[in-house]
Amino acid sequence: TSQPALEYRKLSRISEIMKYGYPGMDQILSYSDFVVSYDRRNRVPHWVFEHITPESVRSNNNVDRSKCNFTPDPNVHPFFRADNSDYKRSGFDRGHMAAAGNHRIEQKHCDETFYLSNMAPQVGEGFNRDSWNRLERYVRKLTKDHPNVYICTGPLYLPRKEDDGKMYIKYQVLGANTVAVPTHFFKVIVAETPDKQLKMEAYVMPNQKIADETPLQVFQVRPEVIERAAGLLFFTNIQRTKLASINGKKV
Amino acid sequence: TSQPALEYRKLSRISEIMKYGYPGMDQILSYSDFVVSYDRRNRVPHWVFEHITPESVRSNNNVDRSKCNFTPDPNVHPFFRADNSDYKRSGFDRGHMAAAGNHRIEQKHCDETFYLSNMAPQVGEGFNRDSWNRLERYVRKLTKDHPNVYICTGPLYLPRKEDDGKMYIKYQVLGANTVAVPTHFFKVIVAETPDKQLKMEAYVMPNQKIADETPLQVFQVRPEVIERAAGLLFFTNIQRTKLASINGKKV
Ligand SMILES: [Mg+2]
Ligand SMILES: [Mg+2]
Repeated sequence: TSQPALEYRKLSRISEIMKYGYPGMDQILSYSDFVVSYDRRNRVPHWVFEHITPESVRSNNNVDRSKCNFTPDPNVHPFFRADNSDYKRSGFDRGHMAAAGNHRIEQKHCDETFYLSNMAPQVGEGFNRDSWNRLERYVRKLTKDHPNVYICTGPLYLPRKEDDGKMYIKYQVLGANTVAVPTHFFKVIVAETPDKQLKMEAYVMPNQKIADETPLQVFQVRPEVIERAAGLLFFTNIQRTKLASINGKKV
Repeated sequence: TSQPALEYRKLSRISEIMKYGYPGMDQILSYSDFVVSYDRRNRVPHWVFEHITPESVRSNNNVDRSKCNFTPDPNVHPFFRADNSDYKRSGFDRGHMAAAGNHRIEQKHCDETFYLSNMAPQVGEGFNRDSWNRLERYVRKLTKDHPNVYICTGPLYLPRKEDDGKMYIKYQVLGANTVAVPTHFFKVIVAETPDKQLKMEAYVMPNQKIADETPLQVFQVRPEVIERAAGLLFFTNIQRTKLASINGKKV
């Protein structure tokens, strides 16, 4: 048999095997101003992608964050949907992955960031409300001298060695829908300068109280560290060696 | 703006946001006789799909299992690829998800089941070599009176309540590539009778030594239990109410 005939035989075999449907593929939720890959097993995102500009983060009187409500996402199958009741009395905040303050062009953009499919449980005091928020504000400020900023944000579940000398991944799950509490969160950023240079920065923060005076640079890591741990590859359309800098250092 | 124009604006916004590439989507590995959805974070499958027939499981002198070698999968990016060294001295077997004995039409079919992308760490004695194998043989035997049998197999990471009253997911990871050791494994099967009736069975087994005399029925669960825990939906092209039976009981 010729090569195309072999290829055809293989494809038709695959459709026989999968006759009754694929049990799952990444669920991509494309909102007006950000994109989510939803982890149906952990009921939190795999990753969230944003593109921000000076315009999209500018304060806008027509957009009122206080009108936004945390809402279970109707685009997610009920089996995999996080609910407000899962977070209630858990001690964890509903932490935005795509930050509300990054989406201020229309009320709808801000509203959509309040879907629970854009949330993960975060420690409130000292993390979501403090150091993680500091990182979000830092990224937003990059738009002052970078006309385009691309942000990928998500959870990590990092292994730890226990007393028996073995490595374990361990994380709490919340409520009836067993919403995962990630051990860490990452942000990988590409900022474009006015002369089209691309600078990358990558951060990992533990999901815990962090002292307010800790400089953000402390949390910088090589992007490969996040890629290996998350099972992701960031900004694959940019050759790493073409970047002007990674974490402020020339590539 | 009209509806199509709005749709267009939204799609073009998505391509702006995702300009530099999607960091990850499900990696589907389509082999000659089975299909894998690979979990790049856990370095084991999300699920594996097989379609077996009396012909595909019949013993065949041209196919020799002893010629097969456990092989790191070159189709998986090196960052996410399990290696034989991860399993070595771990105490765990390299457990097939698509069983080698289900793929006997060509040597290549059998060979491909030995990719480490089709494996997950399994307890050897009392599980992989015993009760899990018993389940695999039971499913294979279904082809005696069912001309088509469809099988979805995969790992589970089930939460447990700890002494502090909270629920945790905890699992060991092996070697330099942190290959996840699932807490449980599932199989969901649809068997077609000669008169085209469809029967579903669903099993969950803990990844531990199981007494050989334990009847397989003990491990039957409602398929929804697996769906919720795994973040998957099985056999979505079949209306559940159209099934002749689930776990031997009329629907
Ligand atoms: Mg926040
Ligand atoms: Mg086996």
